Amino acid sequence: MSYFDAASAAPLHPVARQALLAALDEGWADPARLYREGRQARLLLDAAREAAADAVGCRPDELVFTPSGTRALHSAVSGTAAGRRRVGRRLVVSAVEHSAVLHAAEAVPGAETVQVGVDRTGRVAPADFAAAIGSGSTSGSDRQAPGAGTALAALQSANHEVGTLQPVAEVADLCRAAGVPLLVDAAQSLAWGPVEGPWSLLAASAHKWGGPPGVGLLAVRKGTRYAPQEPADERESGRSPGFQNLPAIVAAAASLRAVRAEAAAEAIRLWPLVERIRAAVPELVPDVEVVGHDRHRLPHLVTFSCLYVDGEALLTDLDQAGFSVSSGSSCTSSTLTPSHVLKAMGVLSEGNVRVSLPAGTSAQDVDRFLAALPGVVERLRDHLGAPTTVRPAGVGTDASGPAGSGEGLVVDSLGKRCPIPVIELAKVIGDVPVGGLVTVLSDDEAARLDIPAWCEMRDQEYVGERPAERGVAYVVRRRG
Amino acid sequence: MSYFDAASAAPLHPVARQALLAALDEGWADPARLYREGRQARLLLDAAREAAADAVGCRPDELVFTPSGTRALHSAVSGTAAGRRRVGRRLVVSAVEHSAVLHAAEAVPGAETVQVGVDRTGRVAPADFAAAIGSGSTSGSDRQAPGAGTALAALQSANHEVGTLQPVAEVADLCRAAGVPLLVDAAQSLAWGPVEGPWSLLAASAHKWGGPPGVGLLAVRKGTRYAPQEPADERESGRSPGFQNLPAIVAAAASLRAVRAEAAAEAIRLWPLVERIRAAVPELVPDVEVVGHDRHRLPHLVTFSCLYVDGEALLTDLDQAGFSVSSGSSCTSSTLTPSHVLKAMGVLSEGNVRVSLPAGTSAQDVDRFLAALPGVVERLRDHLGAPTTVRPAGVGTDASGPAGSGEGLVVDSLGKRCPIPVIELAKVIGDVPVGGLVTVLSDDEAARLDIPAWCEMRDQEYVGERPAERGVAYVVRRRG
Repeated sequence: MSYFDAASAAPLHPVARQALLAALDEGWADPARLYREGRQARLLLDAAREAAADAVGCRPDELVFTPSGTRALHSAVSGTAAGRRRVGRRLVVSAVEHSAVLHAAEAVPGAETVQVGVDRTGRVAPADFAAAIGSGSTSGSDRQAPGAGTALAALQSANHEVGTLQPVAEVADLCRAAGVPLLVDAAQSLAWGPVEGPWSLLAASAHKWGGPPGVGLLAVRKGTRYAPQEPADERESGRSPGFQNLPAIVAAAASLRAVRAEAAAEAIRLWPLVERIRAAVPELVPDVEVVGHDRHRLPHLVTFSCLYVDGEALLTDLDQAGFSVSSGSSCTSSTLTPSHVLKAMGVLSEGNVRVSLPAGTSAQDVDRFLAALPGVVERLRDHLGAPTTVRPAGVGTDASGPAGSGEGLVVDSLGKRCPIPVIELAKVIGDVPVGGLVTVLSDDEAARLDIPAWCEMRDQEYVGERPAERGVAYVVRRRG
Repeated sequence: MSYFDAASAAPLHPVARQALLAALDEGWADPARLYREGRQARLLLDAAREAAADAVGCRPDELVFTPSGTRALHSAVSGTAAGRRRVGRRLVVSAVEHSAVLHAAEAVPGAETVQVGVDRTGRVAPADFAAAIGSGSTSGSDRQAPGAGTALAALQSANHEVGTLQPVAEVADLCRAAGVPLLVDAAQSLAWGPVEGPWSLLAASAHKWGGPPGVGLLAVRKGTRYAPQEPADERESGRSPGFQNLPAIVAAAASLRAVRAEAAAEAIRLWPLVERIRAAVPELVPDVEVVGHDRHRLPHLVTFSCLYVDGEALLTDLDQAGFSVSSGSSCTSSTLTPSHVLKAMGVLSEGNVRVSLPAGTSAQDVDRFLAALPGVVERLRDHLGAPTTVRPAGVGTDASGPAGSGEGLVVDSLGKRCPIPVIELAKVIGDVPVGGLVTVLSDDEAARLDIPAWCEMRDQEYVGERPAERGVAYVVRRRG
């Protein structure tokens, strides 16, 4: 068995396990109490806070422990939005933030959320961020301070689905210049190193770095206006209500220190393994798109999408073959919509696989994966009757076919789910003349993303979409 | 060393420790994932939910796990208040609820909170609860539905500071009759048994029953209008955002089952030990008030207050003598106000000690405590120059003294903190004639509670308070 989903959760680091056991014995009491068990718990809590602050790069009194990374992000967004309510109600976030940030922004009363788009690698452009924050009018009496109206900006340090690193330091600089606090979701990167730049708030989650679940952290740098929105509570500077999960906090701090000590060496080891996957998968498997940035990326994470493949079936078959991976395909989410990250990037979402290698993954593990993947994908494609040979661009029947009407050849995929609409499109594109149209009728949300992505991959022209009597009509023009 | 603060936190139950270790190995993965580690985690989560629901007395799909009892209470209050916003904005709570409930009620936008008072034992009267909920006008066109305007009622099953059991089943019945959902904070009682009656919501905390910290539970019975106020999240039915703390949840469920199996026997064993403390302390230590109900009480908890004693010094000296207890005295809280529970009961707050016996406490432990307490209190009283002999009522100088003016003898205790104002009052009361007045000037918040309580204990007449040039003037008439 190979577990390749470290970005989701990792087994407890041995150091964390040891620290947890010790703290269960020594740190079970209430650290707010005055008797010796309480004082002992307080010492452990203070030491954990110092260690975590050291790893984050902030002062201990700027850092509080929360019950999860999600709750840290929720608090960060609501606390800053409320603290800066008078400054403005605009929240600027990248379109590929973790759903915890997007949902927290939605939940702020009266807020207007502006999403900053990303390129096809999943990366924001600092200039776009600056524009969204509001650089202000520069003419005459309309002159506004930069950042006026923006309560908070949020940018992750690295994306959780595709591993792309964001230009956080640069964006932090321009936020500071505009007087807007930047929240960095560092959940995916904190194990690898501190976040550079003058960020104002930072959130992370221990179970992403080999710590136990139940611990997040929230740093709020001095000078950041912050008004906690949770009910009043004396613990954790009033920023995270409830009895502290001390044994887990101690273990989280210990494992952060431990993984940091190993981070440089492990990054050097894992980087080429991911490099190998990035290079090999498109060679071994036809019709695959590797997504995410090839250099500005996490050392251990790679994501690719396979045309004509059902994502859930792919996970299941890889699981049976001994590999645990995750997916942003629509069929693997409870909402039946593709990952908002893949959507924002404009890349294929069907047959999506995220591989995130835990520390210690060997080259042999990766080789076994690369050996197993092609057969798994081929069988799934066979099963769905997908086009099995790569159709070279420019080859195909040049004439006749049922095309010719205003919408060309119409493929009715109504009621069919990802990846069927794309498979049906691929099957008929050769049946229309070059320059002819194929119209796919679909009511599957994934088609909106995957039909244009297919066009990009297969070098066909995506004309556009329009409402149909039922579902949506997606129009494609044959190029080659 | 004897740890007598089980109501605050308890060491991990051996069963919980074992379950935690197993779940760290088997349940670290994301239970929402489709691969085998995820499925295994899901099985553990489902089993824990079933076990917890069984212990609570609800359906598994009515129960979610939260990061703490505090967060469970916060969610319960905000979720029900929002879900029933159209019904009304009144929140009815007992005056002795945990601060998490009171603070959550304060944080509900636009809510009007009505506190139901308690008697001197800390118990609410069901009729008072019914009145506060609003039984409606019964005459003519003014006729209103019972409970109209009330979004939520909240009553703890047992008080955390004095151990008094509340008439929850009776109040639940009348809430149901009025169509108002009742939230029960069962944090202190769930280890001992399920909460009876038709309650609608129930919250509790695992580290109070020997489970690990980091786990609360929230049950919301079907049919209760509930609108979660946290940002959207797919986990825990959308009622508790963030990655589940699965190993701790598994341990919490296992230990709840284990403590329940031992509860009846342990209750029978601890009840007489508390009985002994309740009887012995007033015999061994002069000027002590044992508070809380003598029959409607938790089996393991007793609270008493010692006149003329500084609470913080008492905790410190008891700690040095080997006993870990807590206190509701003002000097032991960061806000320098006495416990709102003692205040609502109208009992003495100075020199307050809560003893809550963990499972397994022996009679010898209790005997050692009873042997140590009198000396500790005596030394502290000596140190403060407190009246050391019990002054029998009716004895004292009947004449002369500096009394006679409108406010009688004036004692200036401005700038002095609990228990000094009461000590100064006790020292001079014999100096005024029977029927004469003593006025204590004090700016200590505890004096408002402790001077009337002293009068009650020493059989003197508390006349009342009035604003003074600085602080407050508390007026006492000598009776005996």
